[in-house]
Amino acid sequence: MEPRCSETGPPFEDDAVAGQAGMWVATRGRFADSRRKRLRRVARPLQWAVEMSEPTPIARPPRFDHGFRRQLELLFRWRRDVRRFRTDPVDTALVDTLIGLAALAPSVGNSQPWRFVKVDDPARRDEVRRNFQACNRDALADYAGERARLYADLKLSGLDRAPVHLAVFADQDTGIGGGLGRRTMPETLAYSVVGAVNTLWLAARAFDIGVGWVSIVDPERIRTILDLPEGWALVAYLCLGHPEEDHLDPELERYGWQRRIDVADVIVHR
Amino acid sequence: MEPRCSETGPPFEDDAVAGQAGMWVATRGRFADSRRKRLRRVARPLQWAVEMSEPTPIARPPRFDHGFRRQLELLFRWRRDVRRFRTDPVDTALVDTLIGLAALAPSVGNSQPWRFVKVDDPARRDEVRRNFQACNRDALADYAGERARLYADLKLSGLDRAPVHLAVFADQDTGIGGGLGRRTMPETLAYSVVGAVNTLWLAARAFDIGVGWVSIVDPERIRTILDLPEGWALVAYLCLGHPEEDHLDPELERYGWQRRIDVADVIVHR
Repeated sequence: MEPRCSETGPPFEDDAVAGQAGMWVATRGRFADSRRKRLRRVARPLQWAVEMSEPTPIARPPRFDHGFRRQLELLFRWRRDVRRFRTDPVDTALVDTLIGLAALAPSVGNSQPWRFVKVDDPARRDEVRRNFQACNRDALADYAGERARLYADLKLSGLDRAPVHLAVFADQDTGIGGGLGRRTMPETLAYSVVGAVNTLWLAARAFDIGVGWVSIVDPERIRTILDLPEGWALVAYLCLGHPEEDHLDPELERYGWQRRIDVADVIVHR
Repeated sequence: MEPRCSETGPPFEDDAVAGQAGMWVATRGRFADSRRKRLRRVARPLQWAVEMSEPTPIARPPRFDHGFRRQLELLFRWRRDVRRFRTDPVDTALVDTLIGLAALAPSVGNSQPWRFVKVDDPARRDEVRRNFQACNRDALADYAGERARLYADLKLSGLDRAPVHLAVFADQDTGIGGGLGRRTMPETLAYSVVGAVNTLWLAARAFDIGVGWVSIVDPERIRTILDLPEGWALVAYLCLGHPEEDHLDPELERYGWQRRIDVADVIVHR
């Protein structure tokens, strides 16, 4: 395989974006000049958290080794849907770092339809919590007997204590990406946002930050509470914070709602 | 934080699943006994690829360090939607490892709705390719002038050469998870499958395997070609293989279709 990159390039080392200099170098091509300008503009607001501010050498394709793959496996295994948070704040720069990493997710036609809404206003947070409580009461009414008792005991959101509320939307009206790839499967626009959410989730766990995804809300009501454009569809309402505890098993398994199934049972040959 | 796990536990070291012994240990709880049985049953078919077969020490919550976070950032940055594959095969055990890792993704109500379809039959692959070609011709007709010329030149799938075709479906009729979390946002079932796809994608890149997501197909036609139940909705038709080249920038950016946008422009405060 012919190497596609070089190690020479503009010296950005004095820059918080130094890590991205490598990106410019490795992707030199028809947009090199404009990309250089753009990167300076794009990368500053990311404000990588302190420990990410050194240059990351990304000019050459990385070769991931056995040790990294093992760690990655642990990351997948220990990522949890967290509902029990400590109330101490999460560094804003770290949240921005996580959002910046999330935006590296793949998207259909490179449409980048993710929109990240930081919900800090106490009144809006209160309305979101009330919407969750109402939806959760309705959901409980769907169950009976032992299942209802079990459901009522589950803790299904960390909205009460999580220091960070982050709502993630798909901008369904975006022209970015020119509609490529969406003609036959328009749902891939929202799927792209899910990819960003999952990327953020994994990155957060690597920084010891827990993420919980609250789906027991009325998505249209959340959009209204947050005063956002009609074309924005809620994909995930996320709670972020320092988790009270670490677990290897899903909370819904631990509390007897639903066990893990055998992956061999969901593989089909054709 | 009180540690929730211990290092003692059943000695599974003689087992291909040794790594999962730790899971049993760390999650001892009300299901410990049944879980032990279940794990033996679940884990065997995963057949971790050779280098994953040693025990991974997962009895204690991992503490991810700076070095790992840097590597993870590189993984996010160098994961690409790959359309240019070498034709040499991918080890079947590795594909199963990737599927096993994908099944560690979060899912709404722990519903685990992902269904992985390995498409090996040449006739079916041919039909899928023909469906892609027809859909791609239709899509091209949506563009005019320079944009049409640009679109026509893009390589939008690796279906022609990728050694592995993996179709991933959401089982919309599954009873697993008891409907929890899906009442207000039923789309989270498919979103859970997207999370598995993204997990597989990242894991694959860590093993130097490229993944390409083909959305320019008729999902219902693909389900029919593959003779699958009506309740299964196609989420992603994936090509897997050894990539011909590594890149840091998306192919659609490199060939002038759509650049990356400034993440600061998609963050909103409320």
